[in-house]
Amino acid sequence: MDIGVIGLGHMGSAIARNLLSAGHRLTLWNRSPEKARPLVDAGAALAEHPADAADGDFVITMLADDRAVDAVVRGDGGLLSSAGGAVHVSMSTIGTPFAARLARAHAEAGRRFVSAPVFGRPDIALSGGLFIAAAGPPADLAACQPLFEEIGRRVFIVGAAPETANLVKLCGNFMMLSAIEAMAEAMALAERGGVAPATLLDILTGTQFDAPVYRNYGAILVERRFRPAGFPAPLALKDMDLVDDAAGAARVPMPVLGILRDHLLTAIARDGEDVDCTAIAESVAAAAGMADEAGAPRSRNAPARLAAV
Amino acid sequence: MDIGVIGLGHMGSAIARNLLSAGHRLTLWNRSPEKARPLVDAGAALAEHPADAADGDFVITMLADDRAVDAVVRGDGGLLSSAGGAVHVSMSTIGTPFAARLARAHAEAGRRFVSAPVFGRPDIALSGGLFIAAAGPPADLAACQPLFEEIGRRVFIVGAAPETANLVKLCGNFMMLSAIEAMAEAMALAERGGVAPATLLDILTGTQFDAPVYRNYGAILVERRFRPAGFPAPLALKDMDLVDDAAGAARVPMPVLGILRDHLLTAIARDGEDVDCTAIAESVAAAAGMADEAGAPRSRNAPARLAAV
Amino acid sequence: MDIGVIGLGHMGSAIARNLLSAGHRLTLWNRSPEKARPLVDAGAALAEHPADAADGDFVITMLADDRAVDAVVRGDGGLLSSAGGAVHVSMSTIGTPFAARLARAHAEAGRRFVSAPVFGRPDIALSGGLFIAAAGPPADLAACQPLFEEIGRRVFIVGAAPETANLVKLCGNFMMLSAIEAMAEAMALAERGGVAPATLLDILTGTQFDAPVYRNYGAILVERRFRPAGFPAPLALKDMDLVDDAAGAARVPMPVLGILRDHLLTAIARDGEDVDCTAIAESVAAAAGMADEAGAPRSRNAPARLAAV
Amino acid sequence: MDIGVIGLGHMGSAIARNLLSAGHRLTLWNRSPEKARPLVDAGAALAEHPADAADGDFVITMLADDRAVDAVVRGDGGLLSSAGGAVHVSMSTIGTPFAARLARAHAEAGRRFVSAPVFGRPDIALSGGLFIAAAGPPADLAACQPLFEEIGRRVFIVGAAPETANLVKLCGNFMMLSAIEAMAEAMALAERGGVAPATLLDILTGTQFDAPVYRNYGAILVERRFRPAGFPAPLALKDMDLVDDAAGAARVPMPVLGILRDHLLTAIARDGEDVDCTAIAESVAAAAGMADEAGAPRSRNAPARLAAV
Repeated sequence: MDIGVIGLGHMGSAIARNLLSAGHRLTLWNRSPEKARPLVDAGAALAEHPADAADGDFVITMLADDRAVDAVVRGDGGLLSSAGGAVHVSMSTIGTPFAARLARAHAEAGRRFVSAPVFGRPDIALSGGLFIAAAGPPADLAACQPLFEEIGRRVFIVGAAPETANLVKLCGNFMMLSAIEAMAEAMALAERGGVAPATLLDILTGTQFDAPVYRNYGAILVERRFRPAGFPAPLALKDMDLVDDAAGAARVPMPVLGILRDHLLTAIARDGEDVDCTAIAESVAAAAGMADEAGAPRSRNAPARLAAV
Repeated sequence: MDIGVIGLGHMGSAIARNLLSAGHRLTLWNRSPEKARPLVDAGAALAEHPADAADGDFVITMLADDRAVDAVVRGDGGLLSSAGGAVHVSMSTIGTPFAARLARAHAEAGRRFVSAPVFGRPDIALSGGLFIAAAGPPADLAACQPLFEEIGRRVFIVGAAPETANLVKLCGNFMMLSAIEAMAEAMALAERGGVAPATLLDILTGTQFDAPVYRNYGAILVERRFRPAGFPAPLALKDMDLVDDAAGAARVPMPVLGILRDHLLTAIARDGEDVDCTAIAESVAAAAGMADEAGAPRSRNAPARLAAV
Repeated sequence: MDIGVIGLGHMGSAIARNLLSAGHRLTLWNRSPEKARPLVDAGAALAEHPADAADGDFVITMLADDRAVDAVVRGDGGLLSSAGGAVHVSMSTIGTPFAARLARAHAEAGRRFVSAPVFGRPDIALSGGLFIAAAGPPADLAACQPLFEEIGRRVFIVGAAPETANLVKLCGNFMMLSAIEAMAEAMALAERGGVAPATLLDILTGTQFDAPVYRNYGAILVERRFRPAGFPAPLALKDMDLVDDAAGAARVPMPVLGILRDHLLTAIARDGEDVDCTAIAESVAAAAGMADEAGAPRSRNAPARLAAV
Repeated sequence: MDIGVIGLGHMGSAIARNLLSAGHRLTLWNRSPEKARPLVDAGAALAEHPADAADGDFVITMLADDRAVDAVVRGDGGLLSSAGGAVHVSMSTIGTPFAARLARAHAEAGRRFVSAPVFGRPDIALSGGLFIAAAGPPADLAACQPLFEEIGRRVFIVGAAPETANLVKLCGNFMMLSAIEAMAEAMALAERGGVAPATLLDILTGTQFDAPVYRNYGAILVERRFRPAGFPAPLALKDMDLVDDAAGAARVPMPVLGILRDHLLTAIARDGEDVDCTAIAESVAAAAGMADEAGAPRSRNAPARLAAV
């Protein structure tokens, strides 16, 4: 396949690397072109303008926010000015009203557009193991199927309106932070009550909370490993602000969301812009008077002793 | 083994039935003795006073609340007045200060006491498949090991102070309700945004939220199956009040807990005392103007279409 | 004085009427020019473009939101294109980042700009009785003093940066809604406990809560007078969203704000876009299972019996 | 009049002193009798048992909590064992279920009981300037009128059920803390936005927030005068726990209450048991990363410059 990739951050680069390894022709564009160097060395082409990456079968965008996507789509030399007919596959985490506007703009320009945000980390993207939530016109989704097979382990078809896939992605991130917040509150109470957080986590994940979201983030909370950031708090806050916008427009009160946004603000205010989103646990601990030097494990308690029957 | 069982509600009866099937000698006590009838017919003995059920190896208590436990322990004919030497295995969900007082009372009376609250439903208890969080003096826990092997699939040793097991149980129930609340908020937003709750749930449980807590309660939310109650809202509120007491005593603010308690109050105020705790989702929906006739599925959207790559 | 007035909603019209009555020369502009008719009949001139209203001493803008202000300032025929030297006195409730951008745009264009949002209702504006929070360069504020004396009862000088006046205005609206929310929660509890809301209000305003915010809005809550809207819930939500933006940018968690925004959403979702912001009390009552037909006084309890000693 | 006073903390002592100055005969009882010394020196009698203070016209109780009141009423030598016929005037801030139980216990014993909690500080009590919220059987309230005239500036008759007066008192304390919380949030935002808290307070109290609750507590917040405690955070928390109990029993969700309780917990966890309840403002500031050394004014900004028109 002939594929454009626009946006070469951690995730975009990993997806591009995976596609290149599979033997596809890649054309890249990034605002800072030097980030494309390793991939160009490995055989990818470099486009001068975003539009130049849209001559093939697909053009993927994987960018930081609404504004960045808007610039490569509607700016000078943007995708909408391209002569090619590639399906635009938007993988960024963007707001639902903006995704709907993007869909309309493509439709009016006679171009094909699907939203396909992904779940997973860059190291998983490298091996084509992402989860994909995809939405768009059925024919366009069908056309994307071979692309999705290269990128993801599994694709979930959400519906025909592209913005619904973005909504699902935002809901997923909300659920993830909710699980972290709940664990943080329970661990603070447990620790004050003489139960090591690691013990609590072992019991939770050994019973009905046996899911990656608890295992992975729970381990980070137990070790208080808030740097380097896998998902920096300001990016998580940006996503939660998008959820807040969607909830406001839909008139859906989400009280847990308010707590998450407050705790992300506290984490950033206390610990800086480079802290991981899991540091909402430090906001919880600080409010209980339990916070001390960042990064140091607060609790030296032995991990859970487990006795299998 | 010679085992007393005090408290024959759904869970206590199921545990007793399982022990009886395994060939142990049982002595039962319940405030309303007629509830013991089916088990007596199956071979169990019926005690006149709680103390009479404490002559064997173990005496299990599985009661509704602190007050009920206190009555069978320190009341007339209570366990502390027993001549026997059974280890008192407290399986009820009770408050941590009360559990600590119980432990002290037993110690002062020269009696053995462990806390061993369980995770699981009565149908699981019937087959000995519960999870057990146990805490108490190591020698007493060791003595209980054969009993735990009959009752549970797995036992987690929390620590030497009995009340820590109760704290873990309370944390588990808090985590469960937190997960339900988060799903309810996300589903309300999704539904308003054109994504069927069932679709969202499929995607969540197909990715990093693949745990029983999401699968089981998520299905209830999708089907709006809030009656009959598996875990009635008033009981869940009682447990969250115990968490609130523990958090207040420990000076640990838990803002998500406040939301859970508020939504349980709303569920009870709107839908009655016999509604399931998952009806906190109706509190969320009602605040978004989405509530209608109780029990009827609100959303007729087709379930998620899933396409495995 | 020679004064332009842009924006002839309830408040802008009342301010214009008051200035006209005091004998000043007025030039008006409104997007829908027919709203200017009564004032033109009374002697005011009508401008074709916003810029035409900026030839005198002052040009006041009193518009619905950031977008409307931006259009009259930077749009075609906007204030920045005016040949005149009027001080732009911005009285709208706008966001602080936008106010700061406006201030910079004026400074770069060599024009004078002050922010002077007002507190009070249109009927008070008619008689020149508003409170004004003003911020801007000291010389410009001094120049505005004669204008402020016509419009307001009292002016509070906040500082030299125009956006600080807007921040104060937003804080004031936040405080107002907070007081309403607190009263609503207390009244719901009181009513359920057998105390008529009117009795509670009498006691509050008779003791340390003797302020207009409690007297005026408390009476509305007691009578459940949520229509017609004095300050519609969607406008109040817009203001609270501006507070939320400011709080997010400043990294200041404001948990009560989250509750206010949620309850405004519920009020709009339940009762429609034309309901007053005080209907957050209905959100509170509904969550307690106490809501019934909108508009009808829920409580028929006699008002407080007061006995002066 | 012949009056018993039980409970000689700051408030009880001030009320007693005021009554003694007015020429009434006083009989005192306090758990630690040495606290009665100054009043005995001034002419009051000291009782050996609470019951001995109930031989006259009235016996006032002003104690710390439900437990303390219960001890002097139903304990050995308690009021219910008295041979006298004094009206028991309960002025403590106690829970509503307990107040209802007290009322029943008195009725069953053929004794007269009214609830009459007070609003005001000890220095105001000294001069008979308190506000009183009174409830009880009309005839008993009428009998108390001469007593109320000595103690208070104004009495509000709430109703016939004594516990309704306690509910009003709890609502008042909830409203007070809500106003403090709202100011604290607004001040944190203002300060971060370049507006001195003192400026904001001047504008608020100069407009529709012109009430003692804002003036008095606002000044404390501006000066960060959190010690010595006028109303210690643990006592405020106790009262909010009573509100929480009442709200739970009445099935009334009060989300602002949850925030107040959380912030009181944080204040105590961070600053100790002897901090004033206004230190919830420090919880707010800490969550915004603004907290520093306790007690030192954080903001050196000049107070508001006010310009009267």
